[in-house]
This record gives sequence, structure tokens and C-alpha cells, in this order.
Amino acid sequence: MATAKKVSAIKNTPKHLLGIQNLSVLEAKEILTEAKSFIKLNRGSSKKLDILRGKTQINLFFEPSTRTQSSFDLAGKRLGVDVMTMNMGNSALKKGETLIDTAMTLNAMHPDIIVIRHQDSGAPNLLSQKVNCTVINAGDGRREHPTQALLDALTIINRKDSIEGLKIAICGDILHSRVARSNIYLMNMLGAEVNVIAPKTLMPRGIDNLGVKSFTDMKKGLDGCDIVMMLRLQNERMQGSFLPSKREYYEFFGLTPEKLKFAKKDALLMHPGPMNRGVEIDTKLADDINVSLVKEQVELGVAVRMACLKLYCK
Amino acid sequence: MATAKKVSAIKNTPKHLLGIQNLSVLEAKEILTEAKSFIKLNRGSSKKLDILRGKTQINLFFEPSTRTQSSFDLAGKRLGVDVMTMNMGNSALKKGETLIDTAMTLNAMHPDIIVIRHQDSGAPNLLSQKVNCTVINAGDGRREHPTQALLDALTIINRKDSIEGLKIAICGDILHSRVARSNIYLMNMLGAEVNVIAPKTLMPRGIDNLGVKSFTDMKKGLDGCDIVMMLRLQNERMQGSFLPSKREYYEFFGLTPEKLKFAKKDALLMHPGPMNRGVEIDTKLADDINVSLVKEQVELGVAVRMACLKLYCK
Amino acid sequence: MATAKKVSAIKNTPKHLLGIQNLSVLEAKEILTEAKSFIKLNRGSSKKLDILRGKTQINLFFEPSTRTQSSFDLAGKRLGVDVMTMNMGNSALKKGETLIDTAMTLNAMHPDIIVIRHQDSGAPNLLSQKVNCTVINAGDGRREHPTQALLDALTIINRKDSIEGLKIAICGDILHSRVARSNIYLMNMLGAEVNVIAPKTLMPRGIDNLGVKSFTDMKKGLDGCDIVMMLRLQNERMQGSFLPSKREYYEFFGLTPEKLKFAKKDALLMHPGPMNRGVEIDTKLADDINVSLVKEQVELGVAVRMACLKLYCK
Repeated sequence: MATAKKVSAIKNTPKHLLGIQNLSVLEAKEILTEAKSFIKLNRGSSKKLDILRGKTQINLFFEPSTRTQSSFDLAGKRLGVDVMTMNMGNSALKKGETLIDTAMTLNAMHPDIIVIRHQDSGAPNLLSQKVNCTVINAGDGRREHPTQALLDALTIINRKDSIEGLKIAICGDILHSRVARSNIYLMNMLGAEVNVIAPKTLMPRGIDNLGVKSFTDMKKGLDGCDIVMMLRLQNERMQGSFLPSKREYYEFFGLTPEKLKFAKKDALLMHPGPMNRGVEIDTKLADDINVSLVKEQVELGVAVRMACLKLYCK
Repeated sequence: MATAKKVSAIKNTPKHLLGIQNLSVLEAKEILTEAKSFIKLNRGSSKKLDILRGKTQINLFFEPSTRTQSSFDLAGKRLGVDVMTMNMGNSALKKGETLIDTAMTLNAMHPDIIVIRHQDSGAPNLLSQKVNCTVINAGDGRREHPTQALLDALTIINRKDSIEGLKIAICGDILHSRVARSNIYLMNMLGAEVNVIAPKTLMPRGIDNLGVKSFTDMKKGLDGCDIVMMLRLQNERMQGSFLPSKREYYEFFGLTPEKLKFAKKDALLMHPGPMNRGVEIDTKLADDINVSLVKEQVELGVAVRMACLKLYCK
Repeated sequence: MATAKKVSAIKNTPKHLLGIQNLSVLEAKEILTEAKSFIKLNRGSSKKLDILRGKTQINLFFEPSTRTQSSFDLAGKRLGVDVMTMNMGNSALKKGETLIDTAMTLNAMHPDIIVIRHQDSGAPNLLSQKVNCTVINAGDGRREHPTQALLDALTIINRKDSIEGLKIAICGDILHSRVARSNIYLMNMLGAEVNVIAPKTLMPRGIDNLGVKSFTDMKKGLDGCDIVMMLRLQNERMQGSFLPSKREYYEFFGLTPEKLKFAKKDALLMHPGPMNRGVEIDTKLADDINVSLVKEQVELGVAVRMACLKLYCK
């Protein structure tokens, strides 16, 4: 990894962070290494570095977000960046402007980085072809959420030292989850074995092609796992044809202390948040500091975003 | 007061500002003394100090607010803090996340201060038990709005030198007012005599237990008062069983030049804003610079918040 | 122009930027000269100067805006200003506070500059009479949008060296357009000849009194023009009595490559954005980098706003 730092893999390759799929192992490891140094800074009394002073970051959020937007906002400010956040409910889009016109308008103001969240898969890729600044994907449709997977990896490494050889279960609404997709790519890339667990209606066809094993039974899927990643069940899936009821979902796929016993004895629990307590996860388990890494994920998220800003900013 | 500054009362006690009720006289006086020094800074050409550089402040507003939110925002920025404001209409709460999950998420990002406004009485207290940063209450339900009372006290001291021995009337919707509650505690603590005046339907039962005299007649309640604090009458009280009509309210409880004559000759007028001109206050009186302290309250509000940020930030 | 810089025209005159109408030629030229120096800064690697450190800027937007608000926000931040943006949907105005009360509240917090956009013509003027800081008009009703005209002028100068002697067409909804008004004043002042082109229902009466020639026929109006400024057609005009249909509007008044041929051979195209592609402008033409100055307008907009902040800030 020392070599990776001397000759930056990222500085020599395309300048956007659009998805884990577009990342090499070297690049992923470089971000994780860089992020480690920021964990300590964020825990200290003064959380400010001026290494990106004079740079401009625009957070372009087409979907509401608490944690991802805050995380990028603080990451930028702590590095001395001028950060401007745009919640695109209140905007020219209402006047009928297209995503591309909006992007090119903002691009003309010479930002160094645009962080984009968009409900359509592929929107950040489209954007990156139109602008001459760095684009960082903060979640696009069902496709990818690369910084989420990177912060999950950092959180695991922080506890287990390495991801190589671990067995990781990802459980819940795999079908609609960009978090699941990005994590499948990254955990595989870093040498983990990945199980996905979902009810049939929420399991994408052909998921096995991504190099995972798929299960519809928590007992089998969790067997021997070191890490259990629970996904958020969006309320809008509850009505309609995907699921019979919250209660039934909890019964079969909600993580409880009993079901967690199917995994390894020292298995750890993760969740990208926000959690539906009593739907996909037992509320006490979510707060159990011996098992739950939820808070650590949020904490290390800021460090990962600082690393991305530093490495992708020219 | 010199002693109070040498050995800071606040640094030796709990680190949250949840209400005037939780404050000692020494602590209140320390904030007021500290605030005085910021009045001058805010009036100068350069309004920036870097004493809190490297600190992170999150404004977490569950109710919309112009003046309190702006005041905390500018207070933080002028001290060099990285400020992030979250208007929680547009947030994870819509996805069903609880206040506590939101708070713990933000806490994991290592803010130094969370400034919270919430519609539920006690929300800041609950929050303070869950986070390891400082919590400042910017208004919770009907309970407290401590920085409003502190800025009111500073405004009075700025004009009358001291609060000790003054007679202060608080008039209007006492029942629903956190401003009234915080001011009753603080003005009593600083040695004032407090009268509260309201129609029966807007007067809380047992208010006399707080050490005030209660009146339903402006003439009697204002008699001999040095300060007349008018409260905002929320429009939603106008319908329903609380009040017959705006016009009748104005007739009996709206502050007019005629009613102000019931108070002392040099009595001064205060209002926390936003004002309902022609409902609780005559519009000319509100703007009369010989009588109205309304603008000064807003001005000194920034100084008070700067003092709170400085003193409560570890 | 060297003399203009030594003895600043702006520092010796009223301190608000309310409209081009209130500006002298010297003042307009001073802003444009100052803005030129910021173009380079914005294109560089570090886009930060601290010349306005310690100053406070409040962006007070009563209408939603992407580009103008972003532009002022970045302009302030890049000069080291503490910027606070207030989208006044979410505010005390909902509680019934007037514009003036809001303004005086904010004024009491000692901002150095208030940038205001408001749906009512004259709102910034009213505001400027009530506050003791600088007011910059970011668009008021149908009246003026002075920084838009200034950035349009800078864009033209950047390409054509001078505005003196040019022939400029402004086409579209002249009746409702503050951009048209500000540009008519400024381009006339700087020595251009101005044609306005609109359907009869969107042409204000007495427009000729402003020193322009008016046309209802694109062919005649564009004849011999160096610059073609297209205006946005607001969707709400489409229904009702102003226009028969989008399609008919595009047929007669939409700028197409064919209609552009009526202008000079090297004519350049401008649009204040956001564009309605296929309504007032052909989508390919809008993106044709040989003809369209749309991106440059946005880019130089930041430079113009930086110049205004610098010159109008005491």
C-alpha cells in the first residue's frame, strides 16, 4: 500500500467516482488508506485542515438525504473547501430545465467537484460526460452508492483488520438497493465471500452472476457469516405486490437476536440507515454496542468522503 | 463578576444549555458578561474572530425559523465555526427515522455543538442524553427558549444597567409561550418582579407558583412596570376556543400608546418577533425608536449566541 | 478607465445596486473593469481571495433560483465573506411577517450586504430605505435584474471588445422581462443600438420611449444584429390570452438556425437561462459553441457578482 500512496492510482486514471464497478483494487485501497488518516482528525478537538482551500464543491441533491448530504458537507468544510449545497426541489428544474442544463450551468461556475444524488440510475455518468470537474456519485437510482460501500469497507477493516477471507451477508431489499450493488462489487473485489438474502420478490434475477450466493432463508444465508449487513426496507415497497405486510417481513427477514445466532459467534451488524426499527431490524439489536456498527459507519463515512475529496480533487 | 470570569461557572457544570431552569445565577451572568464583548465586534467593520475554528456546529431545526436560525448561523460563522444547518422538513424523518436516530447519526459525525429547535417540549433534553456534544436549546414546544430570555436580559441591561429591582410585564399568550417561561425564570433569577397578563383562556393554571403575579387586565398588570414584553399571538389560536376574534383581542390585550401609559413613564417595549401588527401590538408603537427595543433584541441576540457558543464549546 | 479606478465612482455615490437605471456610465464601467480581473481567478486552481473576510452577506430569495443564487453564493464565499442564504418559502413570512419586518430583523444582525430577489417590482428599493447595509437587486418583478445585464455586457465585451456601435436584438417576452429592461438600459448606455422583438401581446406599450426599435417580425428585427438575446418564455404565459400555443410561438419567435441567418454572419446568441429548448430556442443552436454564449454568461456572472460585492461593500 506504500507504493500505492507514492504513485497515486487515482491521479493517473479517470477523475470521477461514479461507482465501485469503475474502480480498480488499487484505487479502492488508496481511498481506504487515505481515509484512515482522517478518522483521527475527526475525533480530535480541531477538525479543520486547509488542504483544499480555494476549491469549490457543489452538492447537487435531487433526492432528500440527511446523512449522505451532511457527511459530504462536513467533509468538504473540514478540508477548507467552499461548499454549496443545492436541494433541487426548490429550483430551476421546476421551471423545466433539464439535468444537463442545470449541470452545465453549475459547471460554468468552475466548481472543482460536483457531488450528485439522483433518482435515475446513470445520472452521474451522464453528468460526468458534460462537465470538466470531478463528479462523485452520492447514490443514483438502483445502481450504485460507492462512498457507502467504501465507508462500510473501512468500518469492517477498522474492526476486523482486513476484508480478505471474510463472509459477508447482505439482507433485505436487494432488488432496489444501490447500497447492495456497490457493496457486492467492493466486498468481492477486496476478497470477501458474499451471501445475499431476500424474499423472492425482492431478489434480482441473475444476481448470482455478480459472484454472490443467493438465499431466501435467513438461517442458511447467515450461516458462518462474519458481517451481517441489513438493508433499509422502503415503506413504499410495503404496499403493492412486493410484500404481504411489515409484520410478516419482520417475521422472516427482520434481524433479531435469535436470527443473528445463525451467523458466527462474533458476527457484527451493519445498516446504511435510516433504520426501520421493528421492520428490518430489532430495535434493541440496532443499539447494542457490542454488535452494531451503525454509528461507526456514519462516523467513518465523513473520513471516507474527505479521502475522496482529497484524492479526486485535481 | 470578575471572579465569575476567572473561574468559569459553565466550564465546571453540565455542558448543555437546555433551559434557564437548569442555569445558576453565576452561569447566566457569565453568559451576559461574555455577550457584551461581542456587541462591539458585531457593530464593527470586520465581524470575524477565529476562536472556534476547527469546531463544527449543526443547526437542527424541526420548526421553521427566520431569526433564531439566522442568529445562530451568523454567530457560529463569525467565530470561525463550520456551520451546517438542517431544515428537517426535507429529511430522513420523512422516511420514518426517529429524532434519536437522527441525533445519533449527526453525533457520529463529531459535531461540537447541536443547536436544536423542536415542536415537542423536552426534545433537547432527550437529545442531550444521547449525544456527547453540547446541546443548545433554540426553543422546544411550550417549555423553554433560553437564548431568547438571555438576549432579552442583555437588551434590558444595555438600557437600564441592571435587572435587579425592575418591574417587568409579560403580556399575551402565556399558556403556549416558551419565551414567557424562560423569561419568567431568568428575570426572577436576576432580581426583577414579574407580572404576567393574559386572557383567562391563555393563562396557565398555577402560574403564580412560578413567582409571578397574574392579571387579566392590562391596566392593573402594567401598573408601575419598567419593561413591557409583548408575546406573539399565534394565528392558529385565533380560531377555536381560545379567543373570540383578533379585533377583540387587540381591544383588550393589544399594546397601544394608550395602554402603554399604564406603565411607568419611561417604560420600554419588547417583542420576541415576528410581530402581528394590529393584533398584539399597535404598528406605530412597534416602530417607535424611543420606546421599542425590538431591533436591539435581534442585534444583541447574535452577541448572546456567540457567547453561548464560546462558553459551551469545550 | 484608469481614472475611474483611482477615484471610484461607486464609493462616492449611493451604496445600493438597485437597477441599471440608477447607475452612471462610469459606475457601470467600473464594475465591468473590476469583474475582468475575477474571470482569471475563477478559472484558476485556487479560487479564493480573502479581501472581504469579516463581512456578512445575506441572500434573501423570495423566488426560487438556481443560477443567480448560486452565483452570488459562490461569489461571496470566494471573497471570504460569511454567506447566509435564506429561501423565504420556509420562513417567518408564513407566520405573517412583512417584508420590511424581515428585512429589519436581518439588518439588525449587521450584514454588510443583502442580496434580494422578490416577485414584486420595487421591493429592493423599499428594502434599501429601511436598512443601513448595501442592497443588491437580484431580480424584482418585471422591473430590473441589473447583475444579469452587467454579466451580459461583460460577456459581449469579452468577445467583441466593446459594446459601442453594436446592434443588439432582444427577443421574446419583453412585457414580463426584467432582464429585457435592465439590458435595454445598459446596452443603450454603453452605446449599442437595441431592437426588441416580440408578439404584440408580449410587447409593452410605449417601449419605444426607452430608446429601442420594436418589431413583431424576427426577420426585420434581427436584420444586421451582432448579438441576439433570447428571453425565457415562462410556461405560465402559454395558457391564457398571451399566446396561442408553444408550437406557434416556436414557429414565429423561436430562434432556429434559419432565423439566425437574418442577423449578421458572425452574430452571437445569448440567453439568461433557464432555457425552454424547443420553445424559444432550437436545442442544437443552444449548444453550438461557435454561436452560443450561454455558458460564458454563467461563468462571467460569478465574476460580475464578485466585482459588485467588492465595490459595494464599504
